[in-house]
Amino acid sequence: MQEKLNDLKKRLAEIIDINHAIAVLDWDQQTYMPPGGAAGRARQLATLSHISHEKFINNVIGHLLEELHEYTEGLPYESDDASLVRITKRDYDKARRVPPALVSEIAYASAHAFDAWKKARAESRFSDFSPYLQRNLDLKRHYAQCLGYTDHIYDPLLDEYEPGMKTSQVKGIFQAIKRELVPLVQTISAKSHLVDNAFLHQTFDEQTQWEIGIEAARLIGYDFERGRQDRSPHPFSTSFSINDVRITTRILHDYFPAAFFATLHEAGHALYSQGIRSELEQTPLAEGASLGVHESQSRLWENLVGRSRPFWRFFMPRIQTVFPGQFRNVTDEKMYCGVNRVQPSFIRVEADEITYNLHIMIRFELENALLEERLAVNDLPELWNKKMQEYLGITPPNDALGVLQDVHWSHGSFGYFPTYSLGNIFAAQLFDTIKRDIPDLNRHFEKGEFRGLLDWLRIHLYTHGRKFTLEELANKITGESLHTDHFIAYLKSKYGDIYHF
Amino acid sequence: MQEKLNDLKKRLAEIIDINHAIAVLDWDQQTYMPPGGAAGRARQLATLSHISHEKFINNVIGHLLEELHEYTEGLPYESDDASLVRITKRDYDKARRVPPALVSEIAYASAHAFDAWKKARAESRFSDFSPYLQRNLDLKRHYAQCLGYTDHIYDPLLDEYEPGMKTSQVKGIFQAIKRELVPLVQTISAKSHLVDNAFLHQTFDEQTQWEIGIEAARLIGYDFERGRQDRSPHPFSTSFSINDVRITTRILHDYFPAAFFATLHEAGHALYSQGIRSELEQTPLAEGASLGVHESQSRLWENLVGRSRPFWRFFMPRIQTVFPGQFRNVTDEKMYCGVNRVQPSFIRVEADEITYNLHIMIRFELENALLEERLAVNDLPELWNKKMQEYLGITPPNDALGVLQDVHWSHGSFGYFPTYSLGNIFAAQLFDTIKRDIPDLNRHFEKGEFRGLLDWLRIHLYTHGRKFTLEELANKITGESLHTDHFIAYLKSKYGDIYHF
Repeated sequence: MQEKLNDLKKRLAEIIDINHAIAVLDWDQQTYMPPGGAAGRARQLATLSHISHEKFINNVIGHLLEELHEYTEGLPYESDDASLVRITKRDYDKARRVPPALVSEIAYASAHAFDAWKKARAESRFSDFSPYLQRNLDLKRHYAQCLGYTDHIYDPLLDEYEPGMKTSQVKGIFQAIKRELVPLVQTISAKSHLVDNAFLHQTFDEQTQWEIGIEAARLIGYDFERGRQDRSPHPFSTSFSINDVRITTRILHDYFPAAFFATLHEAGHALYSQGIRSELEQTPLAEGASLGVHESQSRLWENLVGRSRPFWRFFMPRIQTVFPGQFRNVTDEKMYCGVNRVQPSFIRVEADEITYNLHIMIRFELENALLEERLAVNDLPELWNKKMQEYLGITPPNDALGVLQDVHWSHGSFGYFPTYSLGNIFAAQLFDTIKRDIPDLNRHFEKGEFRGLLDWLRIHLYTHGRKFTLEELANKITGESLHTDHFIAYLKSKYGDIYHF
Repeated sequence: MQEKLNDLKKRLAEIIDINHAIAVLDWDQQTYMPPGGAAGRARQLATLSHISHEKFINNVIGHLLEELHEYTEGLPYESDDASLVRITKRDYDKARRVPPALVSEIAYASAHAFDAWKKARAESRFSDFSPYLQRNLDLKRHYAQCLGYTDHIYDPLLDEYEPGMKTSQVKGIFQAIKRELVPLVQTISAKSHLVDNAFLHQTFDEQTQWEIGIEAARLIGYDFERGRQDRSPHPFSTSFSINDVRITTRILHDYFPAAFFATLHEAGHALYSQGIRSELEQTPLAEGASLGVHESQSRLWENLVGRSRPFWRFFMPRIQTVFPGQFRNVTDEKMYCGVNRVQPSFIRVEADEITYNLHIMIRFELENALLEERLAVNDLPELWNKKMQEYLGITPPNDALGVLQDVHWSHGSFGYFPTYSLGNIFAAQLFDTIKRDIPDLNRHFEKGEFRGLLDWLRIHLYTHGRKFTLEELANKITGESLHTDHFIAYLKSKYGDIYHF
């Protein structure tokens, strides 16, 4: 049986090498590739993806998984071997249900939809994008049917990003937080004069921003021997192995938080990826558990650490040293309030911790309606704007600032959005457990010490890689199912304090 | 038959996509990869190389080539299809002769030899490297036997880098230039006081060096929309497609020529790669003809253009603008002489246009002796030093400055070195033809116009990609076989003028 296991591992290692090569090509495309490289890169990515897929759905892997399945059922659930077979089988069974031709068709359609989206957004004209969106929807409906579902057509799509999560569960979660957040936003909007952040809108030297971001990433434990930061239009993180986990940021010369928090956010993802147990290297387990769990870590480091009062107690003097002209008269308390200012706005990626989730809910509700054919593509912009008014009290002046702002639907990535909010919710739940285990966490932060937090996260979460689902991790680490109480309490306490209510 | 041709092209395109992905991974490894990435990268490169090799030696490709061979023999020799089948068959027949296990063994041994070489060079201790060199030699002797040869064991190895070239031909060429160069070096050494280059050894701001290098590369026609420059410890150029051809340079803060001429050199390679006919994209023809022909282009742009008097007539004012403190009192004539100073030295890559070739000859003679077992590995350092004294009149004080300086043998790349000199020789031969076709070339250079030269090279050389051998190109473009008269005449005229003899 050991021989079969080794055979499986060898085959998977080859596929993972290919997937990591794909990640390198993708990283280069987003960071350094000159414009002329686009056509060649598309071909290279298509070829490697095809080879990887072909090698994975090979019958031999299916037979090995069948034979090993029985054997590993006798092993502890969380053992490396049982987890490897369980998770790989989950991937394999799904991959086999989708005809390769449909995979190619989706890739092809989304490449064109992406181009169309870029142009449509630049011109702010939804009608130029709608036929491509329709095509993506049709293909993804077909895809969902191949994967199969009993309850919602959204289920198998959501499952791609958040294994085991159901649409009904997300609906319940969103109802719970919507009930709390909409009035919260209204309360705060009436008190918006209480928080000033004009001092964040000044001119900041780009190289200095770059360096202070690197310093902060290093401070929280990102290992630059096993990673690096580069610039890209859209910040992201990516892994080529547990020991080569990269981040990117973008710098706005006239708004300090953009680069700084993008770096902390991506470094949060990277801390997770760098913290996976090295024994899992070159297996399908050497990744984060899901998009939601990954996002919980980027948000935890960006918001629960980087937008916390004790963090700025420690870091404000550093920032004042490098930007004396801009921050001389800014206290740590003023900085803390400034970087947490709540302001309903049109663009999701610029939103604060509260309104962010309302942006997500709008997308979740709309993509569900589209997939269930309760909503026609042509009616989408109108409903988008209506929901923006309902949840956030503002109406986008055009489609570029509304329905066309996000790339996801052009990629056909329906079911992706909720994972952002699931990440926020799980981060808050985790953090309450952490504070029980490390009662003086705030004092650590005030001294610039983040090692205790990082070690805790490594031991309890990062080490496991992809062995468990979000729900399994929630139960295992926090002792309860994923739920919204911690997140709501966190927001109410934090913003009640900042906005005096 | 068209169907079979399309089948072949499709299979080759897939392999080329993989090879370009390998090139991206290699580029990243040499430019940006953090130290932790090394182990993962080695695995990824090994996996992709294995897949590429496996796909190429597939019997189906062999059958297709057999069937198409007959058909394309009826087509003109230089037609795209005939060339595709001819060149691919040449590669295929060679690839099939080598057992895949030997390919892996060589890759494995050279990875270890490379590590050992780096350490041995750092400690300047040849004995730490010699067992690895012995292993590389044994494997490459075996490799040469697999490929087969009638005359010299060196022939099939040389053929890897310079298709069609024979050891005996290189010997003849080297005898001819050695006869001329050794006395030339002696003559110049006696007059070394005539040329001063102390002004090149000052402090030069790195960013300014970077920018002026980019300006020069752009000036000679390197297209930054289809390429880019990055930094790496060892400058190189690489292609991911005809429209994504990258270069690197390294900057020394205390010696101006290092970065500037490395950029021109690599840009020369890149102009060649960017100039290949776009119809050849994604075929094995979309590369340079050979290492020697490639080197002819890097040398042509670096030396025949960048180290020419008319180039500095034009460019000196620009350099004075960006480095006023360093170059205010340096005339273009003084610059021209300074960047052409001849000085026997220990390190090949720092050598001038004359002594460079003597460095190459030493390596060529020694690697021949090693492969033919006329020389034992342990006796190599002594013979190296003896030849340095004989050809250049100096003896390296240690192995780091002697036999351990180059990476090539640690990679097992025996047969590579002569292509550097073949490039120099072919460049001079080409340039005489160009000057016949464009009589006022110098006046172009003096005005900063290089488009005429680039267009000529594109039409006569670059466009063909890999269709012809060096010898075929020499005959086709210059009307004669490759020979040394042009190169000797060029050196005598140029340096006779500079050193007054």
